Amino acid sequence: MKNPSQFNLKNYLSKNQKAVDAALGSLLPKPAVKPPTIHKAMRYSIFAGGKRLRPILALAAAEACGGAAANAIPLACAVECVHTYSLIHDDLPCMDNDDFRRGKPTSHKVYGEGIAVLAGDALLTIAFEMAAKARPTSRYPTAIIIHELADASGSLQLIAGQVMDLENEGKKISASVLRSIHERKTAALIRSSLRLGAMSANATPTQLAGLSDFGFALGLAFQIVDDILDITQTSEQLGKSAGKDVKAQKATYPALLGLKGAEKEADKWTLKARAALKPFGAKAEALSAIADYLLTRKS
Amino acid sequence: MKNPSQFNLKNYLSKNQKAVDAALGSLLPKPAVKPPTIHKAMRYSIFAGGKRLRPILALAAAEACGGAAANAIPLACAVECVHTYSLIHDDLPCMDNDDFRRGKPTSHKVYGEGIAVLAGDALLTIAFEMAAKARPTSRYPTAIIIHELADASGSLQLIAGQVMDLENEGKKISASVLRSIHERKTAALIRSSLRLGAMSANATPTQLAGLSDFGFALGLAFQIVDDILDITQTSEQLGKSAGKDVKAQKATYPALLGLKGAEKEADKWTLKARAALKPFGAKAEALSAIADYLLTRKS
Repeated sequence: MKNPSQFNLKNYLSKNQKAVDAALGSLLPKPAVKPPTIHKAMRYSIFAGGKRLRPILALAAAEACGGAAANAIPLACAVECVHTYSLIHDDLPCMDNDDFRRGKPTSHKVYGEGIAVLAGDALLTIAFEMAAKARPTSRYPTAIIIHELADASGSLQLIAGQVMDLENEGKKISASVLRSIHERKTAALIRSSLRLGAMSANATPTQLAGLSDFGFALGLAFQIVDDILDITQTSEQLGKSAGKDVKAQKATYPALLGLKGAEKEADKWTLKARAALKPFGAKAEALSAIADYLLTRKS
Repeated sequence: MKNPSQFNLKNYLSKNQKAVDAALGSLLPKPAVKPPTIHKAMRYSIFAGGKRLRPILALAAAEACGGAAANAIPLACAVECVHTYSLIHDDLPCMDNDDFRRGKPTSHKVYGEGIAVLAGDALLTIAFEMAAKARPTSRYPTAIIIHELADASGSLQLIAGQVMDLENEGKKISASVLRSIHERKTAALIRSSLRLGAMSANATPTQLAGLSDFGFALGLAFQIVDDILDITQTSEQLGKSAGKDVKAQKATYPALLGLKGAEKEADKWTLKARAALKPFGAKAEALSAIADYLLTRKS
């Protein structure tokens, strides 16, 4: 077993980012396909410089279960399309009203609100088409894969988180309500990315449960770090409007627990995440390195 | 073979509307499920008095192929959810900006734009979950079913139609561009409803092709009749804002071909639709009666 610190995360991320980008490029309709506006808008947001965190987690999960990353590619692309659709819709004027994302104007600033709504719709739709392309395994037929993606993206998870976020804007909420928002808005899709990768590798029920726990803990840690960065970094460092949570009077972990308290909370979930990886041993070195990286990132 | 005129369409529609409504009621999360706003909003639009045309076509298609309507129920519900999501998003201020639909205030008038966007998103998402619940058959595994629904709903069909509609508002367009909008915005999902019903009955390739042709022709006839009703009926008769196409300077068949020309066009497609049903004989009496009914409807 290699020492985790020797694992070359930079190479791993860069190799897999390229693989995901190439697959997205070939799975999405070309920009010239009619009507070109919608296909350009879909590609604009998909290729706006995302870190590909969720798809890379799916690939790494497949490997942690002894499978080939290649089998997880359609699912990796599917979760990235769901994630990108959710950002496009979240940024709309009727939601968070954000003009910049990853340092670039948001979809509705470039294409107008109507096309932005439709580009999100189209990415959500094609996500299911991509997921259906994944080779079913003996434990996980296509119906289970689709159910997994729909559940994580639907009104009980991802969309529920956005609804709760909208409804609580400007309100004083408790740390438990905030956690419940973060669970749905962020942790659910991250967990599902890991579960889908595991499913592509025909994971045992124990492996699937382990990666679910890891994904949930990692997702919460990731969101808390995001909240912290929003108040400690500049817009330039983040590539998106900094301080927007405070401006929108959104509850965040630092606002509720203080900066130190929020950092402690992020550490706690990162430890839980790493503990869930223990049984996977060396096979989970990529996942383990990603968890460390996410906690120490600056953007 | 019974004379088609003896077929009791009213009973058939009412029986199947009830079956579809009951299934939708049980497949959608209950209104009290957290967060209640989104589940109420999903149900508000789903139960706003739609005719259930698409789901009933799916059930009738299953029967025309010798299958049981019951096997097509999850797919019937899926197409109704896609249809309803598309109406919620089309009605948004950034799209067609419509305040009434089927005589009731539209989703964004009741719940606000943010929740309306999310209710549409949630219905689109759950549509795929419903479709994945359909029992796969030997010719049509779940992956084919999901591909069918995603293709009809995606950026090459349903969404393409809405994009073209948005982009051509107020412009002078040709009859061929208008037909291409109608094909994508209306005919594609109607055709897909029939195809999905056929798939649930393990249709032969010939049966599937026949019902595709029927669905495409019926879809175009249906949309032309819709255009005609928009200018010949009052808002009260329609249950939605009449004359809105003219007001929005939208190209319609009556505007391009005159009322008589549009009526002739609708007749032409209805005849094509009926011709496609011939090989199905008595098994297609419901589909045949529905086609006749759609051409003579007043709302």
